Amino acid sequence: MGYQEFKIEGRNAVIEAFRSGKTIDKLFILDGCQDGPIQTIKREAKKFDTLIKFVTKERLDQMSETGKHQGVIAVCAAYEYSEVKDILDNAKAKGEPPFIFLLDNIEDPHNLGAIIRTANLAGAHGVIIPKNRAVGLTATVARTSAGALNYTPVAKVTNLAKTIEELKKEGLWFVCADMDGTRMYDLNLKGAIGLVIGNEGEGVGRLVKEKCDMVASIPMKGDIDSLNASVAAGVLAYEIVRQRLS
Amino acid sequence: MGYQEFKIEGRNAVIEAFRSGKTIDKLFILDGCQDGPIQTIKREAKKFDTLIKFVTKERLDQMSETGKHQGVIAVCAAYEYSEVKDILDNAKAKGEPPFIFLLDNIEDPHNLGAIIRTANLAGAHGVIIPKNRAVGLTATVARTSAGALNYTPVAKVTNLAKTIEELKKEGLWFVCADMDGTRMYDLNLKGAIGLVIGNEGEGVGRLVKEKCDMVASIPMKGDIDSLNASVAAGVLAYEIVRQRLS
Repeated sequence: MGYQEFKIEGRNAVIEAFRSGKTIDKLFILDGCQDGPIQTIKREAKKFDTLIKFVTKERLDQMSETGKHQGVIAVCAAYEYSEVKDILDNAKAKGEPPFIFLLDNIEDPHNLGAIIRTANLAGAHGVIIPKNRAVGLTATVARTSAGALNYTPVAKVTNLAKTIEELKKEGLWFVCADMDGTRMYDLNLKGAIGLVIGNEGEGVGRLVKEKCDMVASIPMKGDIDSLNASVAAGVLAYEIVRQRLS
Repeated sequence: MGYQEFKIEGRNAVIEAFRSGKTIDKLFILDGCQDGPIQTIKREAKKFDTLIKFVTKERLDQMSETGKHQGVIAVCAAYEYSEVKDILDNAKAKGEPPFIFLLDNIEDPHNLGAIIRTANLAGAHGVIIPKNRAVGLTATVARTSAGALNYTPVAKVTNLAKTIEELKKEGLWFVCADMDGTRMYDLNLKGAIGLVIGNEGEGVGRLVKEKCDMVASIPMKGDIDSLNASVAAGVLAYEIVRQRLS
């Protein structure tokens, strides 16, 4: 586990990095460079929405660790994902019933970072995110997690609904948040629990929601629709904390 | 109350807008334009950290509402601040004991927007922010508040500690969040209450903290220091909501 940044330098290495699916956070390209391989790199960067900065040769030379940047340096995020099993082991090692966050396609890296931060402080044993669509562990996530990414294991799974099925066999109950649910104060949220947080716009997906044992609602008195996703996650997580402490 | 955007066009009008302290969110300047008044505008923009975009004449012509942009258009935020009295009247009109958020120098517009959103949904009657240092109601705040800025009154005051003194005369109790406080579940947070949220890095200022009747702590089990400011505000606000409902 843990997060760090490293550099990939040179045309082929950078093209290869994009194609192998590495998370490239920033791309530095020599200003004015227009040849074939650079065009290929720009196309790949566009595909993945990677931020490109056009810089001088001096800047690249300064950044370079190999001295062979060939006009392009990629800054990558290296995060070693955990396995779901590691999260369960984490709970076991602490002698606590598992408390896991499951994020159903959080898209905003600031929200993801803030939620991992909350998971850490609420005493959750780990966070599970889906492989597709959702945002992964980028530099922004690492920064907004305020260091939590180095302590709280994050696992990436192919199918969140299937993971929920498997975790039920380990004795976990699952609660997701939705406006049509039972008021969270009226639910029993003690014991081994998985807290499912939905996407910013669409909430929790139907397939995932069907797997949940409970649907919790946060009381809303206002004029607008919903809380910010990371705030909602915090409010629900701390209702679980309150019940666990009482 | 309410938030909207409007444009100021032409050199003198834009310079005047900066000097009168208007909140200018974005500045569009004709690319390549270097004369005296434009330099003055750029200097003012730099002073206020205003985002400048250099654009073509076609783009400016398109944006212009007057047809007389002279190479510069400023996009401003117009928000009509409320008075503290309006917030108290809002509570009275609803027949509820006042519930007010007081933000001691929140600096990040995303946090401010998310907190106003939370204040709305938690049923608070208004938000009070200080005039200096803290972020004001910019377009980013309006956007991240998800519309709450149009419903929840926001008042700007010169001295937060003095405002707390005055509101105490109206029967409000004040609680701020700090790690050395009493566990929030063990405090009585019912009745007329002001929730004080501190700055992202420094927490609640000493003078403001001294005016508070209670210091609440959010239980923290993790390895890092603190929750994101808007998450902490949400967790505390919903402990108040829970106690009010019970």
